[in-house]
Amino acid sequence: MWWAKRTRSWFSTLLDADGARFRTWRHTASGGLENPDSCGGELQGELDRFGGVSVHLSRHRTLHGLDAAAFRRLLQAAVQQWRTEGRIAVWLHIPILQSRFIAPAASLGFGFHHAEAHSSTLTLWLGEGPSRLPGYATHQVGVAGAVFDDSTKKVLVVQDRNKLKNMWKFPGGLSEPGEDIGDTAVREVFEETGVRSEFRSLLSIRQQHSHPGAFGMSDMYLVCRLQPLSFTINFCQQECLKCEWIDLENLARTKHTTPITSRVARLLLYGHREGFDKIDLSMEEVPAVYTGLFYKLYHRELPESYRAAVGTD
Amino acid sequence: MWWAKRTRSWFSTLLDADGARFRTWRHTASGGLENPDSCGGELQGELDRFGGVSVHLSRHRTLHGLDAAAFRRLLQAAVQQWRTEGRIAVWLHIPILQSRFIAPAASLGFGFHHAEAHSSTLTLWLGEGPSRLPGYATHQVGVAGAVFDDSTKKVLVVQDRNKLKNMWKFPGGLSEPGEDIGDTAVREVFEETGVRSEFRSLLSIRQQHSHPGAFGMSDMYLVCRLQPLSFTINFCQQECLKCEWIDLENLARTKHTTPITSRVARLLLYGHREGFDKIDLSMEEVPAVYTGLFYKLYHRELPESYRAAVGTD
Repeated sequence: MWWAKRTRSWFSTLLDADGARFRTWRHTASGGLENPDSCGGELQGELDRFGGVSVHLSRHRTLHGLDAAAFRRLLQAAVQQWRTEGRIAVWLHIPILQSRFIAPAASLGFGFHHAEAHSSTLTLWLGEGPSRLPGYATHQVGVAGAVFDDSTKKVLVVQDRNKLKNMWKFPGGLSEPGEDIGDTAVREVFEETGVRSEFRSLLSIRQQHSHPGAFGMSDMYLVCRLQPLSFTINFCQQECLKCEWIDLENLARTKHTTPITSRVARLLLYGHREGFDKIDLSMEEVPAVYTGLFYKLYHRELPESYRAAVGTD
Repeated sequence: MWWAKRTRSWFSTLLDADGARFRTWRHTASGGLENPDSCGGELQGELDRFGGVSVHLSRHRTLHGLDAAAFRRLLQAAVQQWRTEGRIAVWLHIPILQSRFIAPAASLGFGFHHAEAHSSTLTLWLGEGPSRLPGYATHQVGVAGAVFDDSTKKVLVVQDRNKLKNMWKFPGGLSEPGEDIGDTAVREVFEETGVRSEFRSLLSIRQQHSHPGAFGMSDMYLVCRLQPLSFTINFCQQECLKCEWIDLENLARTKHTTPITSRVARLLLYGHREGFDKIDLSMEEVPAVYTGLFYKLYHRELPESYRAAVGTD
């Protein structure tokens, strides 16, 4: 049986489904399964369209009194049966208070896929060759806001309290889960400096791997251009040593700044002199094809003639 | 004691340290601790500069024979001591085969921070108010490659085998951990279509939250412009139903495509007619200030006069 390799098209496929990520068979009301193949010993799983089996321990009331050794025997028998049936992967969802079942699963070859607050998900690859299961989130997203006042030619910068080297930089921080890029920039600028602003455009993207501050994961760092709505600085004393409106040309010239700040300062200077359309990625909200949700899309402004003439959106 | 709020500056601070993410005190060779305050009952932890304590169970040999109830008593005593000492958070690192200690920790209020393959990390916030600990990775990153042949005005597109609606789109897929955006695009294009190409520029970025294919996390989807190095199609039959070089104007006009593909097709048309500098974000490798690593930075091309005149990079 074919298991989609770890690509976007695999995910696109999932989006075609009914919202239940991996399931095409479900438990019936009686607790049995519509598809008898999806049993595995006494441990019941749900099949997905890719030939994998998903087991939610929270739905197995009979496990309550079970110790780790007894669970291991149960799981081993189930895995043996799933192998015989030609299943190619097992997903094991374990509530945190049932974590005594993790070590026995690990002793059978399971490893963590991910964990969130009160549950963990383990996987075992049964197919040929190395695992082709999709991974979990790999990037944290940080956003800085370059708040530029076109009329005074000043830009808002801070110096971190906790840096060894004190260098001017744009205020910013990590996106909260589910937060849009521009919202992070506006929120962080306000929290750090007390200045209110609104999103104008995306200016730059940086990708960095094995990031010490991201628990070894990757980091995506975006700088947005923001329009100031207020000008009085009331900066966070815990985070910042200094906060000032400084002249953009000075920021572009000084050595007391990070390479990315210097680069963005020069981009802003170019935009200020020759038009922000030279440097901006504009944002637009566009409907997703499969989910009914909306997403935010950033790219160079497209002239009206190209937007209107053709296409479906 | 102050704990940096969950912002980039918190992470920047970490980068100033000596590479050990949270430690400012370390175990001595004798197994004692340079700072006696960092003990907690019999469970030894390492302090970080933010007032948190980190405990690595793999370094506690005395835990080997311990059962869950005994560990719970040990941890409870340690947490009590850390509270008394004014610590504001505990990080508990647990090897997967010691996962019997997770449930007792959870019963004391710990929750998962994250888990990777063979270990999990739990946290307990002891400070005032809601937790201000930094979260884990929140985004998966997917990349598509728009391979455009300027001489024939044709672009490489596929139709997914597993889509319900068959629509032309650019080949692409998820980034592997640690993989650069452009490398993902080139690899995925080759795997899906057999066409070799090289990275030219970044064209667009899409952010989407609560993504069903990302285990409910967020999704960052980037489209790159690629230059073809070969033209013979040998597409992946498992993933694709069709793969063709089609005329760019047709792709920009057809309704048999996704909104983002249509939008990027029109961007490409604009670039083809009026210069790719109108649509491209160019990429450059830049050194990181603190880590000694390099990262990739994408933004609008900056004229030479702005690059050379000023600044530090």
